[in-house]
Amino acid sequence: MGIEWIGLDADDTLWHSEGHFTDALQLFCEQVGPYAVPGANLAGHLDAVERRNLAVFGYGVKAFTLSMIEAAVDVTDGHVPGHVIANLVERGKVMLDHPVELLDGVAEIVSDLSRHFQLAVITKGDLVHQERKLTSSGLCEHVHVVEIVSEKDPATYRRILARHRIAVDGFVMVGNAIRSDVLPVLAIGGRAVHIPYEQTWAHEHADHDHDVPTLASIRELPGWIDAHA
Amino acid sequence: MGIEWIGLDADDTLWHSEGHFTDALQLFCEQVGPYAVPGANLAGHLDAVERRNLAVFGYGVKAFTLSMIEAAVDVTDGHVPGHVIANLVERGKVMLDHPVELLDGVAEIVSDLSRHFQLAVITKGDLVHQERKLTSSGLCEHVHVVEIVSEKDPATYRRILARHRIAVDGFVMVGNAIRSDVLPVLAIGGRAVHIPYEQTWAHEHADHDHDVPTLASIRELPGWIDAHA
Repeated sequence: MGIEWIGLDADDTLWHSEGHFTDALQLFCEQVGPYAVPGANLAGHLDAVERRNLAVFGYGVKAFTLSMIEAAVDVTDGHVPGHVIANLVERGKVMLDHPVELLDGVAEIVSDLSRHFQLAVITKGDLVHQERKLTSSGLCEHVHVVEIVSEKDPATYRRILARHRIAVDGFVMVGNAIRSDVLPVLAIGGRAVHIPYEQTWAHEHADHDHDVPTLASIRELPGWIDAHA
Repeated sequence: MGIEWIGLDADDTLWHSEGHFTDALQLFCEQVGPYAVPGANLAGHLDAVERRNLAVFGYGVKAFTLSMIEAAVDVTDGHVPGHVIANLVERGKVMLDHPVELLDGVAEIVSDLSRHFQLAVITKGDLVHQERKLTSSGLCEHVHVVEIVSEKDPATYRRILARHRIAVDGFVMVGNAIRSDVLPVLAIGGRAVHIPYEQTWAHEHADHDHDVPTLASIRELPGWIDAHA
């Protein structure tokens, strides 16, 4: 069956995201470092706190900000000053309010694809933040379905496809994360295309032995679809 | 047209919620109070911070926890100790992980109603938290549609009804919040039933001059529907 629906991941597929977390990590180290107990591994501890909190906080900037605050108290043995805590909260707000910066080619390619295919943006993270980014992205008019989910596993994709009566063999998912955008879609019998981003959160790395089509940029997507649809 | 779809709010309509925020406010006052600057209005300041942050943080426990932390730094002029900050983060986790306590009559009435009507749970808040509460509520098998949204305004209800092909004159929304569950539904031509909860967040109060049907408990809902469907 030919491709009728294209699923698009959002963070680091349509717009830049991971860089804001990397910048926040740098702020965390600069601000918290002077108060940390000797030998503390700031980045390592934050990463551990973040992963431990995923199950209860979920994904997104608010979860990350709370983990920064928890880690700041931990690595300073409670001696982090209030103004540093305030700066971490403030950074969370800046991240939530940051203007969307589309990746190269996204505006043009998404508009082109929408003339021939149904497009579904499928993304995880903060509900209010993802909605704001979508609204300000200018892409909404080209997108037929938006699904903001708490986790991208096979059951999630199955539910989304059923809800919108999308045939799995007419669906291809496009994204930068092997773990979230590729493997669960292959698991339910769909197709997936990987477009790596310059930085990937370690949590999204995944070992696998699938032969996944990999593109250098979304600009190569229409050509890939022409060859495979 | 008779009623075909019933929309149900979740927090403080299906299960207890506001009490956990009231308890957290008490913890905030107990823990932060000893370090507050003289004359500080702890509850008043937290409420102000929370409202100011709504636009950027949205609703839910993670937003509330971040606002508690911001307010704690504010009212102590930065002197809140790290262990108090850690206790506030911990309280956020406890709230997110708290077992769902259904309101009296909910399990029975929701099950009964699902035999004659299509049920849609429409709720705002943390995506991951609301999903967890729904899953552990035992209500999922009776519910046909779940919509977790960032704001409940007329446009939101219009979008949900369109997405699920629900006729507005066959729809009634049931909830504890005049501002979120009643007025926006009346605004799009639907019906709404108010079931006040014992406590209501001040933000959800709203003046209006509609004659809104008000029930003492969800146990009265089937009777009201029989009389009005």
